[in-house]
This record gives sequence, structure tokens and C-alpha cells, in this order.
Amino acid sequence: MANSKPLLLLSNDDGYQAKGINELIKALRGEADLVVVAPDGPRSGASCAITSAVPVHYEKVKEEEGLVVYKCSGTPVDCTKLAMHTILGRTPDMIIGGINHGDNSSVNVHYSGTMGIVIEGCLKGIPSIGFSLCNHASDADFSFTLPYVRQIVKETLKNGLPYGTCLNVNFPDTKDLKGVRICRQTDGVWINEFAECNHPRHGGYYWLTGSYKNYEPNAEDADHWALDNCYVAITPTKVDVTAYELMENMKSWNFSLD
Amino acid sequence: MANSKPLLLLSNDDGYQAKGINELIKALRGEADLVVVAPDGPRSGASCAITSAVPVHYEKVKEEEGLVVYKCSGTPVDCTKLAMHTILGRTPDMIIGGINHGDNSSVNVHYSGTMGIVIEGCLKGIPSIGFSLCNHASDADFSFTLPYVRQIVKETLKNGLPYGTCLNVNFPDTKDLKGVRICRQTDGVWINEFAECNHPRHGGYYWLTGSYKNYEPNAEDADHWALDNCYVAITPTKVDVTAYELMENMKSWNFSLD
Repeated sequence: MANSKPLLLLSNDDGYQAKGINELIKALRGEADLVVVAPDGPRSGASCAITSAVPVHYEKVKEEEGLVVYKCSGTPVDCTKLAMHTILGRTPDMIIGGINHGDNSSVNVHYSGTMGIVIEGCLKGIPSIGFSLCNHASDADFSFTLPYVRQIVKETLKNGLPYGTCLNVNFPDTKDLKGVRICRQTDGVWINEFAECNHPRHGGYYWLTGSYKNYEPNAEDADHWALDNCYVAITPTKVDVTAYELMENMKSWNFSLD
Repeated sequence: MANSKPLLLLSNDDGYQAKGINELIKALRGEADLVVVAPDGPRSGASCAITSAVPVHYEKVKEEEGLVVYKCSGTPVDCTKLAMHTILGRTPDMIIGGINHGDNSSVNVHYSGTMGIVIEGCLKGIPSIGFSLCNHASDADFSFTLPYVRQIVKETLKNGLPYGTCLNVNFPDTKDLKGVRICRQTDGVWINEFAECNHPRHGGYYWLTGSYKNYEPNAEDADHWALDNCYVAITPTKVDVTAYELMENMKSWNFSLD
């Protein structure tokens, strides 16, 4: 075969110049052919947002042996869709988001642009993984995560993932990693979510901020516990969000019109 | 009690001036005290996106007996968070997104700004419902949906929703409704997602478009089948996206570093 290495599509929500995605490239370079299609600037908190009111465009910024990098004007999901529709030319063996600067465990999965990429890949039937480090700093140290990134990608390429499932992998911000734990999504909530400031001429404006309240800090099977206890947290995630139990319960409700 | 009517927070992703949210107000006016906090313009496809790079602000645009309307510079989820943090002053009895101009069944739940509002409400422990009509037109006829909207809201206020669950309600674009079906999320995929155009001076640009491919057109328990067959589709939805079956399976994987 002319092309025996797997093809991996990489993207992120911090932009193609962020340290995290460049560390991801470093981790996987040589193991696979890498195509990066990432936003041209920060898109943190983009979730699965798509751009429909304006068109999107992309541009090649780098091409080397085994690596091509494109920047794109859209959201992380736009990047992923456009890569598959237009740029790649063949179906990738895996889609990877990250490495994100910041925690995507627990409820953060819903707001995460990194996980938007992964959910998009999963909806397209492609094994997909999001990697995130619990450190928002632009110069965060990712070095200790890279051997785990490589091993998790290799093991997932080998085993595959069941249709409709993907992986949300979070690293605690410590070099003293105790290993990997397979987790469920922690139940918790963001509180005190805005800081109010006064505009010099008119009214208030609000910065999104807040603190995370863990509803189950002692749940050893939950991803937040794993991170708090120095484990790499792998949270298997699904795209069918049906509440099946509630379906049964609701069959006795009254929907007849008066 | 001075205040015996329930308090409902309404938002949408089409903007506070859209017909859909004004029809929603019409449906619920008098049944409850309504506070609208909606984007100041269209935010279709915003998913659960949040705004963190810039601050957000809001402004009151209307106040009448039982109805206050605010417009907000942020995403649908920003509107929902800001309403709960700053505007409402008490916990709403329900959060409602819509009525959306366009279908949010099947995989669209992931891209939907309407369902972003609902997921945010659900994460905050508040019964939440998204309503959508399978018609994108800005002047779509919502009139036949309004009695169902009212009945579904009343029945949900009466019964409540289990913690961590919410409702995704879609209406087919027909006056000949056959009733309500409780459904699961249909498995399907968007294909041919971009139309390429040429810029007069440089390169291509891409409009998001595409067609939906239903993987299970004959599944009578799926939301897309209900819509295709003139039923109101209620899809109970959950915010815990853990793939529990895969958790077990992955415990035999090898994550030891070489």
C-alpha cells in the first residue's frame, strides 16, 4: 500500500497557533499522517456551534512531510465539516480535538468546542477523541500528557469505538499522574457566573466567569474525582441524548387538547 | 400569595423580534408571568456556545402586565445564564426555548441554539422545554402549534421532569396534526454540507447547506418518523452523555505506557 499510515484529522477551539494543538502534533507526528484544520483564532466555548449566516473559508498555512495545516474562519465544528467535505479527500481514521487549554470534564462537555469537534466526528461515524488539560494558561506545560495521548490514540485505533460513541479525555495539571481511569460524567453546576462592570458612559456589562460546584465530590467513578486524584480521566460519551426512562414515564401524560 | 402564577423564562436563537418567540408569548400569555431574555439578532446553530472573550450586555425593550422583554448581545445560553444570574430575581418555574424556525429533531439537537437554552436550564435543575417548527420561513404559520404548546407546558408544570432531563418538542409543518408521540432521537446524518462559491478576487468560500439522511426512516419510535407522519414529536432528552456500556468494555483496554 502506498499509504499505510493512518490519517488523523486534528482540530481545536483555541486556534491553530495555540500551544495545545502544536503539542498534539508533536505527540502524534510520525505515528500517522496529520491534517490540521483549526480555527484562525480562539473559539473557546463554541460547543457544537455551526456558521450559517455567513460563509466560511480556509487557507493552507503549512505543508511538511506527514503534516498539513489549514486555518479556517469558522467554528470548530465548521472546521471539522469542511475538512471532511472539501479538504481531506478521504475519510480520516480518527478525528482528534485538542489538546484544549482547560478542563472539559463534567458539564463542561456541553460548552466545549473541543468536544464539538469530537461529537461532529462521532455523528459522522468516525472514531473521535477530545484531549484537554486542566490548565487555561497559553504556555501551559503539556509535556507529561503526550505519552498518554499517544497510547490512548493507538489503543483506540486498535480497538475502535462503538457507533455513536466517542471519548472525552481530561488530564489533571500535574506531572505526578497515577494512571488512567474510565469514568462517567460528574454531576455538578457552574455558579456565580458573571462579574458585572460599569461602562463609563452607559449601563453595565457582564463577563462570564463563575466557579464549579461538584455535587458528588466523593464519587470515585466520576471524571472530576479522577482529576482531583491525579488520574487521567477518560469519559466515554454518546451522541444519542434520548432520556429513555422518561419516555416510558411520559406515556401516561395527558396531551389531549381541551 | 402575592404571586401565584408560575414564572416562565423564554428565549430563542432567532432573536427577540422573530415571529416564533412572539407566537410563544401569545400561547402562554395569561397562563404565567413571562420574562423574555433573547438574543438581539439571529443566533441559529449556536448550540450551547458561551461568550467568554468579550463581555455581554442586555437592555429592556418592553414591559407590560405579565410580560417583560429584554434583548441581549450574547448567545442563547448567555441569555439564559444572565437571566438567572442577574435579571429574574427568583428561580423560574420553567425555561422555554423557541418556537424555533426550523427542525431540531434527530442529530440537530446538537447544533440547536434552542436546545442550548433547554440544556442550560436542565443543567441548572429547572424544567425546560424546546419548541421547534419544521419550517424555516420568517413568516411561518405557528398558529396550529399554540394549543399544543400550552398543553405541553401545563402538563410539564404539573408533572415536573426528572432531574437531568428536558424535552425537545418538534412540530411538523402541517395543520393536520394527528396528536403527540413520545419519541427517541432518530439516527441520521447531514451530507453534502457545503456549497462552494468563488470570491471575485481570491479563492473559494463555503456556505453551510446539506441534506439530511435518515438512517432509520421506518423506525416508528423515532422523532423523525413522527414528524414525517404528522405527529408532534416529544423527545425526552438528558444532559448526562456518558456512554455507560462503553465504560465497561474499555476497562480491558491497555493504557500502560511503553
